[in-house]
Amino acid sequence: MAKYCFGVDVGGTTVKLGCFDTEGTLLEKWEITTRTANGGEAILPDVAASILDKMKEREISREDVIGVGVGAPGPIDGEGTVYNAVNLGWGTFSIKNQLQGLLNIPVEAGNDANVAALGEMWKGGGQGHKNLVAVTLGTGVGGGIIADGRILSGATGAAGEIGHIHVMDGEQEMCNCGNYGCLEQYTSATGIVRLAKRRLAADDKPSSLRGNDSISAKTVFDAVKAGDELAIEVAEQFGEILGKELANIAGVVNPEIFVIGGGVSKAGPILLDYIQKNYIPYVFAGSRGALFALATLGNDAGIYGAAKMVLD
Amino acid sequence: MAKYCFGVDVGGTTVKLGCFDTEGTLLEKWEITTRTANGGEAILPDVAASILDKMKEREISREDVIGVGVGAPGPIDGEGTVYNAVNLGWGTFSIKNQLQGLLNIPVEAGNDANVAALGEMWKGGGQGHKNLVAVTLGTGVGGGIIADGRILSGATGAAGEIGHIHVMDGEQEMCNCGNYGCLEQYTSATGIVRLAKRRLAADDKPSSLRGNDSISAKTVFDAVKAGDELAIEVAEQFGEILGKELANIAGVVNPEIFVIGGGVSKAGPILLDYIQKNYIPYVFAGSRGALFALATLGNDAGIYGAAKMVLD
Repeated sequence: MAKYCFGVDVGGTTVKLGCFDTEGTLLEKWEITTRTANGGEAILPDVAASILDKMKEREISREDVIGVGVGAPGPIDGEGTVYNAVNLGWGTFSIKNQLQGLLNIPVEAGNDANVAALGEMWKGGGQGHKNLVAVTLGTGVGGGIIADGRILSGATGAAGEIGHIHVMDGEQEMCNCGNYGCLEQYTSATGIVRLAKRRLAADDKPSSLRGNDSISAKTVFDAVKAGDELAIEVAEQFGEILGKELANIAGVVNPEIFVIGGGVSKAGPILLDYIQKNYIPYVFAGSRGALFALATLGNDAGIYGAAKMVLD
Repeated sequence: MAKYCFGVDVGGTTVKLGCFDTEGTLLEKWEITTRTANGGEAILPDVAASILDKMKEREISREDVIGVGVGAPGPIDGEGTVYNAVNLGWGTFSIKNQLQGLLNIPVEAGNDANVAALGEMWKGGGQGHKNLVAVTLGTGVGGGIIADGRILSGATGAAGEIGHIHVMDGEQEMCNCGNYGCLEQYTSATGIVRLAKRRLAADDKPSSLRGNDSISAKTVFDAVKAGDELAIEVAEQFGEILGKELANIAGVVNPEIFVIGGGVSKAGPILLDYIQKNYIPYVFAGSRGALFALATLGNDAGIYGAAKMVLD
């Protein structure tokens, strides 16, 4: 009888792996280096070898393993096919088929942000819900949509790529994606710094942020908590841009809950307040009751979600 | 062996019904009056009686029927529970359970716009695709999302309610939903008239629309086809608002195709041109290749989609 599953989160520098029981208890986690040379050809063989080693070490037979779930950065469709994951050097191929061939164990694969959303639904900030939007506010802005308990992948695995939704006309700075005025440009960690610098440059209003050469999202929200008026204006602007856009996303997928994670979310519940109060005025009645919560799994969300993929 | 299924589209004034074979051939369609008095208590019994009559007439036994699908206006979740369908007088109850009890045949139920989207995927403008966004430009703006071949219902059946996504700051006129600046206020049939009237009032630019007391979406697009410059400006504005918003929706659900229906879509392929050229500049690369097509099933989309629900 199958008693275990593995969750794998492939990142640009390390691969995180977790061994779970079928109740979702994380029994052990470890990391290996991501070898991206030669089109990333070593990545899945390395993953397979590491899992087989762990199975040998723990005396787990193939029959004891329900499956191996994999999350990776890049567009991955519902069939486990990746389409050009540039960070890993990968072109287009079936992660599911290749890793299944190496392991002789069932494999599922999905986009890392979507898989992390599933992890937060299962064991994190979204527990108890099956219609969820996960928003990751880090260096960039990522997202993952869970609809009726399943990952929404979309046509080419690009569903939930909410960081590049257009939210601002007239933006002069280009986003990393080549467009102008993307959500990420204002609500990522670097986006919040952009808002703060622009606000500081607008006039001479006093602020504890003035003269600080290393403003970060953290210093902005620390200043908010200390009552700095200018920082509060920046937080309001951040909240209006993100809250309004989440209202629009709710108009599309009608979630029960938004789960906010990433480095910016370390600001804590105050972050949710700024988002939610700007969400309410814009959202359609049917989604007005959506909840807002902080992500709780941190960097483990990916391995949890990957494991969950093979349990469903 | 089951050979038939029924599709039911409950509207505010009539209920459309269709009898299909399991290949999706519409064998017969008919209508009954929607009796909304007393909280719409007669609606489902009337539907059941009409289906049982038709089965008797065609000598179809219960064993020959795979199921009955129902689409109705209002929030209906994935379990077939409706939450206050004001147009029908309905409160909150399980359409699925009630109609199954009346018919002793399996029933599925969903929001009418979502069900119509499924119909367009199955036998209409979206054939061959399983990730689709249907947009209905009529008196209002409705929508339906199909993800991996299934209706995306959301938490309370409000997924795809794209007409009330906020697209314009500073709007002074209130939308029917109580908010300001909803997509529907500019891109429905009445919304296009609003854009045209505002453009006409802005200056004295000559136009065939001037002095016309009964401007409609049709007259606007007829003028566009005749080369009227002011009408073309209105179409551009319509296209920019809708194309930009569809780009944002693509950032959430990454569809293969947008299927545009409703009365406004009678303008034909030129409508798609205005939408698509304004979609491309705003959309994230992963969804840039999405197709645009016109809906083809018209008022029958609902019964087709309802029938498809029970075949899946």
